[in-house]
Amino acid sequence: MTDGSRKAIVLLSGGLDSATILVIAKSRSFCCYALTFDYGQRHRWELEAAKKVADSIGVQEHRIVNIDLAQFGASALTDTSIEVPKNRADLGISGNIPITYVPARNTIFLSCALAWAEVTEAFDIFIGVNTTDYGGYPDCRAEYIAAFERMANLATAAAVQGKEVFKIHTPIINMTKSEIIRTGFEMGVDYSLTHSCYDPDELGRSCGSCDSCRLRLKGFAEAGLKDPIEYRKAVK
Amino acid sequence: MTDGSRKAIVLLSGGLDSATILVIAKSRSFCCYALTFDYGQRHRWELEAAKKVADSIGVQEHRIVNIDLAQFGASALTDTSIEVPKNRADLGISGNIPITYVPARNTIFLSCALAWAEVTEAFDIFIGVNTTDYGGYPDCRAEYIAAFERMANLATAAAVQGKEVFKIHTPIINMTKSEIIRTGFEMGVDYSLTHSCYDPDELGRSCGSCDSCRLRLKGFAEAGLKDPIEYRKAVK
Repeated sequence: MTDGSRKAIVLLSGGLDSATILVIAKSRSFCCYALTFDYGQRHRWELEAAKKVADSIGVQEHRIVNIDLAQFGASALTDTSIEVPKNRADLGISGNIPITYVPARNTIFLSCALAWAEVTEAFDIFIGVNTTDYGGYPDCRAEYIAAFERMANLATAAAVQGKEVFKIHTPIINMTKSEIIRTGFEMGVDYSLTHSCYDPDELGRSCGSCDSCRLRLKGFAEAGLKDPIEYRKAVK
Repeated sequence: MTDGSRKAIVLLSGGLDSATILVIAKSRSFCCYALTFDYGQRHRWELEAAKKVADSIGVQEHRIVNIDLAQFGASALTDTSIEVPKNRADLGISGNIPITYVPARNTIFLSCALAWAEVTEAFDIFIGVNTTDYGGYPDCRAEYIAAFERMANLATAAAVQGKEVFKIHTPIINMTKSEIIRTGFEMGVDYSLTHSCYDPDELGRSCGSCDSCRLRLKGFAEAGLKDPIEYRKAVK
């Protein structure tokens, strides 16, 4: 049962960015449908994190969809024979496309969000892309999102019938990691429930040295806050 | 091992349109990678048909990818509780969007084709959309395809690196069904291997009365050819 407010699909990975956009979407009075992908990622702990985050913030429905992106191969995030890079000087943000890039991932995720949006009659989709995370990921840029939105408005039954217009919301696209963390913290996000590490151990503890862990730790440090999650070894 | 010719991803459903575009792509000297989706369709016979078509025409690789679109629901093609419409006067081409429309299907399929294209370093994608099949399907129109192509060129690592430009080929978009059949027939497509019916029986025989069967039968009749597949009951 919805409360009559406008519906939104929110892509929820279980990481801190998507937890933050979920709370932002709620603060804008959207009735939120959280969508998480089990895509064969090696950091499957994020699926558990996504459940906890959805429960904690509160959503109308949380759907975990299976799409095995490893069927296409060629990323360290889905292919365990490729090592996750550690302790890179540039944190992967120097403009080269890192091996952790999953081909067309955001395009596939947004396409699925669009399908679910059509079915639920939502016309708003939230995605937690941001330029700090960009690190050479082409599908995190504003011009890409704008092109997807334009395509979505030609792709769908609702759009053709002229009922409504799809809008892709990217509320954190221009924030730094520390701004994201501070924003979410002020809005009550419990970051202890989130997971960011690309290469956790069997207990789900983060490595502290992959690009994702280091961006996260840098963000907390710059925000003047302590990261509440557990790392395999003490981190500064 | 490829012969050095340009690679193309060809979306191959097992129906007659996609069999025709595969033979067209080959005639244009592309080295073809056929991509078929097991998406929870009730007409699963088309997967067998896709294998036979790929074998018959000859491809570099044929990949069948699992993406259960029934996870999003709301189509007669994936939800067996919804009946496939039969014997409709307008064959579903009057402009209303039929219940057999699968939300965002072509967008999801093209997104996956884009992922595989990135991995195989192909920059050409063939899709067998056409306006006869349009029947109110928004994601079969030229302006939709153009918007997808534009988005694809902002989405991907290869595009950002300025290496190449993705092109979505729609060689049959403006053909009538009979033109498609005649074209394929002249190029040697064995249409006895293809499957079109939305509602086949347990032996894979076509119903002859769903929109897809009727468009097919009308196309063969107008092309002056006999449809070589088997129907449950005799058709004119």
